[in-house]
Amino acid sequence: MTRWEQAAIVGVGLMGGSIGLALRRSGLARRIIGVGRSAANLQRAIARGAIDQLVLESAGELPEVDLVVVCTPVDHVAKQIAWWATSSANGALLTDAGSTKARIVSEVDQQLHAHNPRQARFIGSHPLAGSEKTGVEFARENLFDGRVVVITPTDHTPPSATEEAQHFWQSLGAGVISMTPDAHDEAVAATSHLPHVIASALAAVTSPDLLKLAAGGWLDTTRVAAGDVSLWQQILLENREPVLAALAKYETELQSWRHALEQRDATAIEALLQQGKTIRDAVGN
Amino acid sequence: MTRWEQAAIVGVGLMGGSIGLALRRSGLARRIIGVGRSAANLQRAIARGAIDQLVLESAGELPEVDLVVVCTPVDHVAKQIAWWATSSANGALLTDAGSTKARIVSEVDQQLHAHNPRQARFIGSHPLAGSEKTGVEFARENLFDGRVVVITPTDHTPPSATEEAQHFWQSLGAGVISMTPDAHDEAVAATSHLPHVIASALAAVTSPDLLKLAAGGWLDTTRVAAGDVSLWQQILLENREPVLAALAKYETELQSWRHALEQRDATAIEALLQQGKTIRDAVGN
Repeated sequence: MTRWEQAAIVGVGLMGGSIGLALRRSGLARRIIGVGRSAANLQRAIARGAIDQLVLESAGELPEVDLVVVCTPVDHVAKQIAWWATSSANGALLTDAGSTKARIVSEVDQQLHAHNPRQARFIGSHPLAGSEKTGVEFARENLFDGRVVVITPTDHTPPSATEEAQHFWQSLGAGVISMTPDAHDEAVAATSHLPHVIASALAAVTSPDLLKLAAGGWLDTTRVAAGDVSLWQQILLENREPVLAALAKYETELQSWRHALEQRDATAIEALLQQGKTIRDAVGN
Repeated sequence: MTRWEQAAIVGVGLMGGSIGLALRRSGLARRIIGVGRSAANLQRAIARGAIDQLVLESAGELPEVDLVVVCTPVDHVAKQIAWWATSSANGALLTDAGSTKARIVSEVDQQLHAHNPRQARFIGSHPLAGSEKTGVEFARENLFDGRVVVITPTDHTPPSATEEAQHFWQSLGAGVISMTPDAHDEAVAATSHLPHVIASALAAVTSPDLLKLAAGGWLDTTRVAAGDVSLWQQILLENREPVLAALAKYETELQSWRHALEQRDATAIEALLQQGKTIRDAVGN
């Protein structure tokens, strides 16, 4: 069983903090180092027990680590990984927790193909776990229990990295699915990014004076709209093409709804409702 | 404090059963009678403690009651109320729990205006509480605690009915808001019926092979799509004009999203996300 001497978590918020707590629970890392820009935030992470030690990004010197998990916003990930590839121990495993994969993985693959003095092994990861909350104060060790993590190996990924990443996420409680970066991005456009757009748009069109009538249905359907704005801005820009394709499909479905309502077509309304219910029921709560 | 000798709940599912349990908890009804078509279902309601006694709708004879709450699908409510108006005790309070109000209230007002031998007092109600679950087995006495019930008095509503309905719902744990039937229907089109359409459409466009990637965002945003199909078919048909107006506003918002994504307009995406977050944050979880 792999055991990591020193693991670095870069960006210690809800996701990075939960990885720290779950990694500690697994007992597989001797030492967990949190890396970030804010000493105050990293101090909170130490107090929460999510990391053992803090290192500021601005520090010139870095500890040699054999596992790096980058949990920064998606537009920072590729740069961070490239940087750690030259600073970690020889043959370290580098991965990330970014919600989009195609651009990140292709950039990192190219960079490491061109220059990889320490034989760093990279594989993209995306844990399908999180919350509309942000910050290490909401981190929890069971965030990944029973959840899915997608890993996205390519032709450039050493098989040992795929195996080790799989082992890593499983030891945190998750099930692991392997997909290509492109297939991943299309899938999450439909299952995560489109829902965010839909929820945000619904919240935005609701008159504030009606909020006193917002009951369970509105609250559930808009819940993710409370998510971090700049995080989601980056995700949606990064994955705009698959999101636009998913949005087009969704707009067509709404047109069917409009048509059925305009025509008072009871049969069509029933069929639309049944179609949605069948797919929703297939998943459970 | 009003106390009802005999209260009838017509249609004892999740809503009617919860009214029975909450009414029992309040101690304000001496006897709670469940009325419906299925003896088996009403037996379950007795076993759950939601009602004391069952009466089948097909029974010729009805107990004299001084409070009637009709919890049947919206297309049955007006007929049921008209029928109870001639069968209940003199001056009984009649109300309902239907999710739409304009047509129901106008039909009942007209009927009672034309023929009201027992001086029945009617007021429309809509408890903003429920679940995607159905059936008396999911009923609970705290369903209304802290929730909102909209009552919709009109020029035809005796002031004593408004007061008594307010007292009734408050004794079940709810807060009461008074609106006109039309204002109510427009409001719930935006806060409840449009969310249902949105959720159903999202579930329907999700490929079943991607459901393994459905995490919190998708699950929350689609939750209400699991609701009862024929119930929602009736609600949406009944309230189609306000729903179409809300849907049009929503489609315009999605067009802004499409445009912002097509143009890679980071500022517009941020503004759209912020607009949604601000409104969602105003409500809490």
